[in-house]
Amino acid sequence: MTVHPDTTLKRLPERGSRDFDLACSIIDEAMIGHVGFTLDEQPYVVPMALGRDDDMLLLHGSVVSRLMSKLAEGLACCVTITHLDGLVLARSAFHSSMNYRSLMIFGRALLVDDEDEKTRCLDRLVEHLAPGRTRDLRASTRKELNATSLLRLPIETFTVKSRNGPPSDAAADLDTPVWAGVIPMALSAGEPVDAPDLADDVELPDYL
Amino acid sequence: MTVHPDTTLKRLPERGSRDFDLACSIIDEAMIGHVGFTLDEQPYVVPMALGRDDDMLLLHGSVVSRLMSKLAEGLACCVTITHLDGLVLARSAFHSSMNYRSLMIFGRALLVDDEDEKTRCLDRLVEHLAPGRTRDLRASTRKELNATSLLRLPIETFTVKSRNGPPSDAAADLDTPVWAGVIPMALSAGEPVDAPDLADDVELPDYL
Repeated sequence: MTVHPDTTLKRLPERGSRDFDLACSIIDEAMIGHVGFTLDEQPYVVPMALGRDDDMLLLHGSVVSRLMSKLAEGLACCVTITHLDGLVLARSAFHSSMNYRSLMIFGRALLVDDEDEKTRCLDRLVEHLAPGRTRDLRASTRKELNATSLLRLPIETFTVKSRNGPPSDAAADLDTPVWAGVIPMALSAGEPVDAPDLADDVELPDYL
Repeated sequence: MTVHPDTTLKRLPERGSRDFDLACSIIDEAMIGHVGFTLDEQPYVVPMALGRDDDMLLLHGSVVSRLMSKLAEGLACCVTITHLDGLVLARSAFHSSMNYRSLMIFGRALLVDDEDEKTRCLDRLVEHLAPGRTRDLRASTRKELNATSLLRLPIETFTVKSRNGPPSDAAADLDTPVWAGVIPMALSAGEPVDAPDLADDVELPDYL
């Protein structure tokens, strides 16, 4: 069930808007990405919440996080966002696979310093993860803003990989009396769970 | 909604079996991991299917994959496996978060060369992703085995990070009439979809 990577980094300035739209759709459906970077020759991969502002991937974290500081200093990174869409069960192990969509973005992040811009981007992040939520929340305080690092990574140098569709069995295996097909997979939301300290008269908002 | 990473690599030979069991449970619930490595100073993060054999994480891929060759040569890697368990919606953006379990394994992979051992590990991989499936599948041919690279990564140097539970709001926000709580998230399987070339008399097996 190989997810074959093509790890060749290609700079493709001639890439069309269709690829960009596909990349954005992968981001917009995702809540987290995996951020890869290298420190002292050791690779690290860290899961982070994400958002998008036009052609910028948004990441945030604590100002005391070493990772956020290093990224803000321009450490090269690779952010990979993957949707597992299905298990592709062929009549042999060898031809079994996965359906998925995956985006790798390469680059260096930029720190958002300006307070208004930071506020706007943090709102984008909240809306990305819980659309409609910013209407209900109070504004962040200056102290909260100062405790948060907000990074933008240009969606510029990237690779999209995907597989879709049924298994591709070897012709010789087609007569085998073994079930073949796809088990669809998706990240899905369950029933909201009230906070224990929620007042009795506060109801679940429509957007949730 | 920060997922705060602690990116300090710690070698913990005194780590107890509880941590190991927790790491294994994160692997055993997962279908893919994100494999991070560095080539020519560029970090890459690639999604891959995974399995487990006792204290070894199993990865596989095509023998012609450059990544598989580099990993087999002992390239340092970090494999991160993340379960997003919930969106934690606090009464402020700042205290909002995510519930998750994440495992980072650091190390160098080992190529499995022995044919019997490779066959056994590939079966483990299939069973990891679709328990019960190996009973139905024919044995892999020698040609298929030769076309597949199978790697083992020791589950030895690793870090588990997780968050669980309701939001932790600031005391001053508790009276705000804003819903707070957790939206549970999980990767879930949908209804199996028959392959278009499936014979009419082949039924979905019980294990699916």
